[in-house]
Amino acid sequence: MSFSRFLDDAQGRVEAVLAAALPTDCSPSRELSDAMRYSVLGGGKRIRATLIYATAETVNCELTTVDPAAAAVEIIHGYSLIHDDLPSMDDDDLRRGKPSCHVAFDEATAILAGDALQSLAFELLAHPHEQLTAEQRCAMVTTMATAIGVQGMAAGQAIDVAASALGLDITGLERMHRLKTGALIQACCRLTAIAGGAGAAALTALDNYSAQLGLCFQICDDILDVTASTDQLGKPNGSDDARQMPTYVTLLGLDGARQAAEHCSQKALEALTEFGPEADTLRELVRFQLERAH
Amino acid sequence: MSFSRFLDDAQGRVEAVLAAALPTDCSPSRELSDAMRYSVLGGGKRIRATLIYATAETVNCELTTVDPAAAAVEIIHGYSLIHDDLPSMDDDDLRRGKPSCHVAFDEATAILAGDALQSLAFELLAHPHEQLTAEQRCAMVTTMATAIGVQGMAAGQAIDVAASALGLDITGLERMHRLKTGALIQACCRLTAIAGGAGAAALTALDNYSAQLGLCFQICDDILDVTASTDQLGKPNGSDDARQMPTYVTLLGLDGARQAAEHCSQKALEALTEFGPEADTLRELVRFQLERAH
Repeated sequence: MSFSRFLDDAQGRVEAVLAAALPTDCSPSRELSDAMRYSVLGGGKRIRATLIYATAETVNCELTTVDPAAAAVEIIHGYSLIHDDLPSMDDDDLRRGKPSCHVAFDEATAILAGDALQSLAFELLAHPHEQLTAEQRCAMVTTMATAIGVQGMAAGQAIDVAASALGLDITGLERMHRLKTGALIQACCRLTAIAGGAGAAALTALDNYSAQLGLCFQICDDILDVTASTDQLGKPNGSDDARQMPTYVTLLGLDGARQAAEHCSQKALEALTEFGPEADTLRELVRFQLERAH
Repeated sequence: MSFSRFLDDAQGRVEAVLAAALPTDCSPSRELSDAMRYSVLGGGKRIRATLIYATAETVNCELTTVDPAAAAVEIIHGYSLIHDDLPSMDDDDLRRGKPSCHVAFDEATAILAGDALQSLAFELLAHPHEQLTAEQRCAMVTTMATAIGVQGMAAGQAIDVAASALGLDITGLERMHRLKTGALIQACCRLTAIAGGAGAAALTALDNYSAQLGLCFQICDDILDVTASTDQLGKPNGSDDARQMPTYVTLLGLDGARQAAEHCSQKALEALTEFGPEADTLRELVRFQLERAH
């Protein structure tokens, strides 16, 4: 199967799981459930869900086994975007080509929609599943909680919010991104490894792979922020610059950033040497990321 | 043991569990972990943890078995207070006798501290525990997620934020409180019933008890908001009135609200008739609530 076909299938697959998992208008607060559906459905590249399905292929795990995890990571990603876009954080009015949640609804509803999405993600991971033991589901809850909490995503965003004042250097920038976006991307591989019962060697390889993929992903985002149009991005271009945020482009220049992305993608591919063709989709995913920035 | 001794012990016990569970200054964002500790430690009546320990007594469950659940509910309660106090929500500057989280730190840090506290609560519930099976821990995660998400606490807060505009009647007010505070209070009993392996009859009784206790608790809060001083409350008195919020007192009058609290407390006690002296602390907890309002 071609990678673009795999990507289409993964996007369609997780969209259906998300549509079924998100609350409908019979929930107690219609506005809250509307805001949750608005922010999660019908948008986004679904890179995280795709990474989960590609990893499932690699560790020989059925896709149905990781459907809840794929939905959970996209829900967590959606919650983090809602909160990151808030006026007191990055103050972004546009997201995925439409008004941000706090603009389409209001700030209070946006905060609560993010909060309720986080709870929903854990509900999905813990829910009984005929192909997963309770031990596996608990381990998946723990993996997700660690990835997004004070040792992970939330800490990364806290550092990001303070970053323009602090003036991060390249080491500080990388550390921030490892937490802010890298931890959830690594969690995609770890969740799937748990679901597929992968061994320690495979887990280590996937950990190394996803750490580099996450960095490559972020560097490419920084490049696109200056090279792509607002239409292509679905959010305002040049927004990092407007906030005087340190980025890979401001710290390394455009060419330097492209070299750094190339370097990470090489390291990501090297991490997969112990796998055969079963990791080909993971390899394609690296190339797909890199092509975005060219 | 007297009830006030039980309360002191429960408060001291959960404070120690919380102090160990909350992040220290070695976390990646010092400010974030400081905000989490600031908001959760050293304050609050710990009614929810006390309810868990009292329920443990009733279902003959060791207190160590429910320590993680007791910490988790207080952490969730702390997160909900941080977000409720935000300028776009209730805009309260004072909480537990000190500046609210967003005043002591800033708005972005407060939002992220709430977010990271939610993750931490799930981490605690899912964490391996020698007295709990993985099935029990998964059920506890599910119970908590349901209680605080779009079908529970978050929906209640969304309705509350819109309430002054909507002009709730007494039925709408009760429905809002059943979600906003009642769902987490019911979760305290359910989490403990799961941990203690309680049967269906005990679970139903505890469900009925905690539903009434939650309402009684809220009615007493509304009464105290008009009868107690800011010093006694640790937050500004008359704050509901200032926001033109419907309350039990504005809808029923002070005497009517006291009668309603009395009625709920009777129903709570009736729900416990199937239990013997093992439920005496739960009974005392009802009387303790009621006495706050007199």
